[in-house]
Amino acid sequence: MAKREFNVSKKEKFAEWYNTIIYAADLVDNRYNVQGFVVHKPWAMYSFRALYALFEKELEANGHEPVLFPAVIPEDNFRKEAQHVEGFAPQVFWITQGGAEQLTHPLALRPTSETAFYQMYSKWVQSQSDLPLKFYQSCTVFRYEHETLPFMRGREFMWIEAHDAFASEKEAKDQVKQDIEIGQRVLNEVLGLPLICTERPAWDTFPGAEHTYAYDVLMPDGRVNQVASTHLLGQKFAKTFDIEFKDDKGEAKHAWQTCFGPGIWRIMAALVSVHGDDRGLIFPFAVAPAQVVIVTIPAGDAKEDKKILDYAAQLRDRLALMNIRAVIDNTAKTPGFKFNYWEMRGVPIRMEVGKKEVEKNAVTIARRDTKARAQVPLDALTTYLVETAGAILLELKARAKEDFNKRLKDAKTKEEVKKILEEDKGIARTTFCTTGEEGHACADELAAFAGGAKVRGTLVDKEEKPEKDAKCIVCGKPAKAIVYVAKQY
Amino acid sequence: MAKREFNVSKKEKFAEWYNTIIYAADLVDNRYNVQGFVVHKPWAMYSFRALYALFEKELEANGHEPVLFPAVIPEDNFRKEAQHVEGFAPQVFWITQGGAEQLTHPLALRPTSETAFYQMYSKWVQSQSDLPLKFYQSCTVFRYEHETLPFMRGREFMWIEAHDAFASEKEAKDQVKQDIEIGQRVLNEVLGLPLICTERPAWDTFPGAEHTYAYDVLMPDGRVNQVASTHLLGQKFAKTFDIEFKDDKGEAKHAWQTCFGPGIWRIMAALVSVHGDDRGLIFPFAVAPAQVVIVTIPAGDAKEDKKILDYAAQLRDRLALMNIRAVIDNTAKTPGFKFNYWEMRGVPIRMEVGKKEVEKNAVTIARRDTKARAQVPLDALTTYLVETAGAILLELKARAKEDFNKRLKDAKTKEEVKKILEEDKGIARTTFCTTGEEGHACADELAAFAGGAKVRGTLVDKEEKPEKDAKCIVCGKPAKAIVYVAKQY
Repeated sequence: MAKREFNVSKKEKFAEWYNTIIYAADLVDNRYNVQGFVVHKPWAMYSFRALYALFEKELEANGHEPVLFPAVIPEDNFRKEAQHVEGFAPQVFWITQGGAEQLTHPLALRPTSETAFYQMYSKWVQSQSDLPLKFYQSCTVFRYEHETLPFMRGREFMWIEAHDAFASEKEAKDQVKQDIEIGQRVLNEVLGLPLICTERPAWDTFPGAEHTYAYDVLMPDGRVNQVASTHLLGQKFAKTFDIEFKDDKGEAKHAWQTCFGPGIWRIMAALVSVHGDDRGLIFPFAVAPAQVVIVTIPAGDAKEDKKILDYAAQLRDRLALMNIRAVIDNTAKTPGFKFNYWEMRGVPIRMEVGKKEVEKNAVTIARRDTKARAQVPLDALTTYLVETAGAILLELKARAKEDFNKRLKDAKTKEEVKKILEEDKGIARTTFCTTGEEGHACADELAAFAGGAKVRGTLVDKEEKPEKDAKCIVCGKPAKAIVYVAKQY
Repeated sequence: MAKREFNVSKKEKFAEWYNTIIYAADLVDNRYNVQGFVVHKPWAMYSFRALYALFEKELEANGHEPVLFPAVIPEDNFRKEAQHVEGFAPQVFWITQGGAEQLTHPLALRPTSETAFYQMYSKWVQSQSDLPLKFYQSCTVFRYEHETLPFMRGREFMWIEAHDAFASEKEAKDQVKQDIEIGQRVLNEVLGLPLICTERPAWDTFPGAEHTYAYDVLMPDGRVNQVASTHLLGQKFAKTFDIEFKDDKGEAKHAWQTCFGPGIWRIMAALVSVHGDDRGLIFPFAVAPAQVVIVTIPAGDAKEDKKILDYAAQLRDRLALMNIRAVIDNTAKTPGFKFNYWEMRGVPIRMEVGKKEVEKNAVTIARRDTKARAQVPLDALTTYLVETAGAILLELKARAKEDFNKRLKDAKTKEEVKKILEEDKGIARTTFCTTGEEGHACADELAAFAGGAKVRGTLVDKEEKPEKDAKCIVCGKPAKAIVYVAKQY
């Protein structure tokens, strides 16, 4: 299935580009015979493994511990929180039968696990000393979606969900800040993805949450991809599920809760789309399925070729000792063919090994991002690789940031918003009456005017206030907020 | 929920021991409100992570690559292979509804994934050069079981399933041998579990397989726990699912298949049961949730205690650099209380850090298995730990092997089989007519006579032939096989 050549304009034909590269690079197979479910191939799995590990490490350093809850949730739990069930019910797969027997209580296949975790939290929390609870699980979840696209929206997709409970509102709010920092660190610093983190408007909070904060990555087609979100649940679920503790005065109190969901699938979609180019994928070094490909250049002489292959194998073992994932391509194809193939698959560093390299005890290294090539003596390899891994990240980050900055624009009118979204494929920054519930009508009007434009909310990591006389671009009333508007996936 | 004290005789009251320790050590919580589904707590999760990694590393070194298939399987796929569906149908959870809609085609929640993988293999295999396919997935599977016990039998449990396809029967048979070697290496060499690996009798093969080979660990109550199995599927599934390729003469051939299932849950049950003692769990170093616990011994002076805690933190960081998972217990409980608590939870190495240790730049180390204690200068720590980790494994392995050898006995009659199984809580080695289909009646008779005794099969790693005039202990006909008989979980 994997194709060996690729050349599609990401900018001009993004949908085609995306729908070609995810199969050409052999990340997924969409021919599984249940609509909306895909097979994850090894090339994606190695990268997912690294992505999960990045977040798991951060979450554990932040005091979270791993758990695994059942994939099934009793209908009764699920229906307990009214907003939550209303939000999720249309998307739930229901298990109604076991063997030949009808189940007396249908089971939801988890679309998200609040209602699984929190009934147990009510058992785990008795006194203040049982708090905080900070647990996460790495798993797939299931949603009965009607339009699907691998890594963007699927009937089964990969994520992490962290569910926390605290004795005070302050701790819960602090946790939200920490979640946002974790997201920022991994998404931006390690993966090089530029993004905006906003508090979602009141009408766009997670079902059952008081406040929702989310990261949006701007995709090449101008739509934003929500890659992670964190929710201040307040005490709503705690009251529904009786998560109660005695405080130091012996008074019964409900816990304050948060949940955090790094969307591992969505992050893959962002990595593919933001860093890729017309030649294919470009993985940041940290999450590349193979970080190095060693391509042998035949000398046309069996004895020499054997030496070259041995040299390549030694090189791979040396890289393994440095915890670098390397593959050898010793197939009979031409070097040019092999170069194209591994470029398309996004391997950040290519090492060429031929007669010359063996003689010089060196290796020729080519970067996927800049195409720069250099011959490096083996003695200098470790330093060179560490520096190059960093340089590739900086380059990808700079390119992505430049593109992002070009497409993030101020708008003074609805018309300008529409133009920025549709012509510039960008995000519009504008003045808006309010992100409280009263602003909902203006948001709907803006969406109708500008082809589904969504008010994504107000920035979280930077306080922005409209100027004193600023007006809402929709209703013309005084603007209380500077909001970001974009089309969404 | 976690208890701080534990003292139950594993030998005398195994069921009580097991049913107490898995909760006391906080491995699982069985109060989730769907019967047969449990919540996996962090103490189990850290160990599962290490267990998965051990097998994944071996499988990848053997040429397997990770994939993730959908958790749902269309009813039609599932019903294609007649024996397979007959074997699994009573255990399948069926998804029949999405949102408010009835699904036109019910979906099985995977009980095992042959019928998910192989329909795709038919697409992935066209020519001989597409073979072999060697893929595995780490996942949970679902079975509608009626009697459940955490880690032994559940409605959702953890495992790995590897599915391979080859161009020839020989390669498939070789793969079975390699699977068996992987099992032996991890289960016995790394985890210290003594076991027998047998070819299952004809009447006890996996539904759809030609031959089944499986590992049995003898549990303290005398029942065997099948912790892994590998199946020579032959061409049955390949014919059902059209996994066909053109060989080098251009002839269409069906692939030869194998599948291998390390039962991660079952292996945890074996680790808990075989290595634990009356005081609680004992984890082998390689898969311990925490490999070291650092217990602070207060000096009764705030300034000194601060120094002790700092020293403990430095020690933990030093261990982290050695990739050793360590936790600090600096709670206000007495040292004796803390020692008991971490012994119960099975941490293989305890480090005590008090005033004395800080002054001497040393640490007092106690082994969970032998209770041996020694003061070790920090300079010598690395060497000491490497040696001690190895020594603990050897000790656990030796204890387990001694117990196993005592309970593996020869039987010359049905009565002796019954006695070995019931009084000695052992495995009986005996002479049997045949493990071919004709032996089924004798096996049933033996089961009826000896309280459910099961013929587990003939040894795989050692050829054993009955003596010339040996008779089947049931029918008295000439014995073709030396079989192992045990009660099973």
